[in-house]
Amino acid sequence: MLDPRTNVPPEGALVATLEGELDLASGRRLTSVEVAYETFGRLSADGSNAVLVCHALSGDSHVTSGDVGVSPGWWEPMVGPGRALDTDRLFVICSNVLGGCSGTTGPGSTDPDTGVPYGSAFPFVTIEDMVEVQRRLLDHLGIVRLAAVVGGSMGGMQALAWAKHHPERVTAVVADATTPRLGAQPIAFNVVGRRAILDDPAFAGGDYYQSDSQPDAGLSIARMVGHITYLSNESMHEKFGRRLREGIEYAYDFVNEFEVETYLAHQGRRFTERFDANTYLLMTKAMDYFDLRGESETLAEAVRGTPDRWLVTSFSSDWLFSTDQARDLAIALLAADKQVTFAEFESPYGHDAFLLEVEQQTSLLRPFLENSVRACAESLRRKEDAA
Amino acid sequence: MLDPRTNVPPEGALVATLEGELDLASGRRLTSVEVAYETFGRLSADGSNAVLVCHALSGDSHVTSGDVGVSPGWWEPMVGPGRALDTDRLFVICSNVLGGCSGTTGPGSTDPDTGVPYGSAFPFVTIEDMVEVQRRLLDHLGIVRLAAVVGGSMGGMQALAWAKHHPERVTAVVADATTPRLGAQPIAFNVVGRRAILDDPAFAGGDYYQSDSQPDAGLSIARMVGHITYLSNESMHEKFGRRLREGIEYAYDFVNEFEVETYLAHQGRRFTERFDANTYLLMTKAMDYFDLRGESETLAEAVRGTPDRWLVTSFSSDWLFSTDQARDLAIALLAADKQVTFAEFESPYGHDAFLLEVEQQTSLLRPFLENSVRACAESLRRKEDAA
Repeated sequence: MLDPRTNVPPEGALVATLEGELDLASGRRLTSVEVAYETFGRLSADGSNAVLVCHALSGDSHVTSGDVGVSPGWWEPMVGPGRALDTDRLFVICSNVLGGCSGTTGPGSTDPDTGVPYGSAFPFVTIEDMVEVQRRLLDHLGIVRLAAVVGGSMGGMQALAWAKHHPERVTAVVADATTPRLGAQPIAFNVVGRRAILDDPAFAGGDYYQSDSQPDAGLSIARMVGHITYLSNESMHEKFGRRLREGIEYAYDFVNEFEVETYLAHQGRRFTERFDANTYLLMTKAMDYFDLRGESETLAEAVRGTPDRWLVTSFSSDWLFSTDQARDLAIALLAADKQVTFAEFESPYGHDAFLLEVEQQTSLLRPFLENSVRACAESLRRKEDAA
Repeated sequence: MLDPRTNVPPEGALVATLEGELDLASGRRLTSVEVAYETFGRLSADGSNAVLVCHALSGDSHVTSGDVGVSPGWWEPMVGPGRALDTDRLFVICSNVLGGCSGTTGPGSTDPDTGVPYGSAFPFVTIEDMVEVQRRLLDHLGIVRLAAVVGGSMGGMQALAWAKHHPERVTAVVADATTPRLGAQPIAFNVVGRRAILDDPAFAGGDYYQSDSQPDAGLSIARMVGHITYLSNESMHEKFGRRLREGIEYAYDFVNEFEVETYLAHQGRRFTERFDANTYLLMTKAMDYFDLRGESETLAEAVRGTPDRWLVTSFSSDWLFSTDQARDLAIALLAADKQVTFAEFESPYGHDAFLLEVEQQTSLLRPFLENSVRACAESLRRKEDAA
């Protein structure tokens, strides 16, 4: 039986059917692609205020609640009237990524060739494939040029891919808590998460949608591993220490005993209620594959053709997407003669800080985006004059 | 069918049956306990040169090959003639821990009450329980006083427990790459490893010894998680980077693609050939439970009654048992007026450094142990004079 939680767009999202087929980096082709998206604010008359937000591994198009009174979005305190991404001034677009499980075509979607969910037949996707879908969505929406593309974590990788592959459509880039490419350790953590899913008997090679059992155990373990890497050692210890869930005596059993066990088990279980195991596999693979450098000799060479304006941010306690990696990117951008603002925010929250550190991020992001809208308007004006 | 790999002592190990029953911290009782152990070198006439080495999670009694020409031990370059633990001068004892799977009574041993392997009926063990078994082994061997107890990682926890509970039998303590207690993050990694084993259908609640299938998938994932935490980010990236196993093109499949994937998969698989899932559960639980502080207000108070002589060592890139934790221990020991040498060794190898950094460790350990033998002889002499 098809699990009802699979690939349903968030309340209030729109679904666009993209024109044409989609050729993927892997060599595979999708004959039809739908994309779930949401927009907030209004596009200005000159079209200079569009900002594309790209979501991270477990995100979706629901970046904020907007004004329709629905549930909070994944970046709620950052996106809305008067916020860092001020929807009184900006036209914010956020879409679920290709291969996702929140309304955009993904492994839980019906394969038009078979009439049943793709499952294992769904092709691998890359960050660049996700960006191509977003590009077509912008065409569909009539947006010629973005004031900025903004993304954190895997969303930041998409922002980097936009910068590299479509610089003519991007005025400014915000690369938040991200990296030009993963090193061996983050790949290793992804490997463990995938292994847990692939080895779950209920995974059934990826074709579990019409089965009674789902690979919840494997997906839950993958999420637990992920969660550890999203928190800093310090914040985790601050939050849980060695506290026991009940009392002060050890129970001598395998039931969740330390508070941190209960927390991880809860996070794992909750995740299986809203996320799809095949999508988890595809997203982590897409991250592993992403390498901004590509064929270039150096990172500086790889970013030479990208937009002029950059905001690169990292968080002091983020050990998954560390400041070192962000700094390498910033240095490469400087070497390529870009206008780059690079900031490491002090935060105890590890990688999750990009979702939590609202004030610090707002202080930079808000003026950066205002300036980007002006620069975008200027570009559009010049283009019109030239035409 | 009983898996032949379960609970076999290493070649050359002796097995002693301990006298009496064993009451455990959990309140449970083992009616009979065997302990697999090996000794290297000769006990001196005054009995002052005995050094007990305590092994880490995946170790066994086979700390070194000794002179019998068998396979190398887990601390081979550190223990032997002329080495840090010089078996020309010292009498080195190493035994498999209680709950282990290399010859000492553990979950794979036959339960005398049922005639089949304990499996899920085996009680939880603590670091203190392991130490009690070692204490009885020393009685069995007629060793009154140790020149030193030496341990790294979980072995270091045993050394700390020896220091706290049997100071009258220990002259000096070597606490290597260890901690007085785990924080939330290391517990969290243990939680994930346990979850993978507990959720493996072949685990069968712990009673898999007589089954055709073993919880290899779960144990393998647990080992993969462990391995990531034993290496530093730097050494892992140095070793594997983003290199692909074959060629330069992405394969777009879930077969091991990056070299780091192949490595982890290999480590996981190899581990299942020599280690037992129930033991893995028990060892990680014992580590989670261990807290040197106990009922004491401060760590300094907890170590007040311990032996006078200490060597506390850590490794710069070890993020699992970090220098911060070793330094806290050293500071507490100083506050308790102990003679403590504290050293952080520069090393890129993460937690595994305690197995790899031979020269640096030898430079401190060798003289420290020589001095400890002299101090032990002095203690034994005083005791004899007093008698």
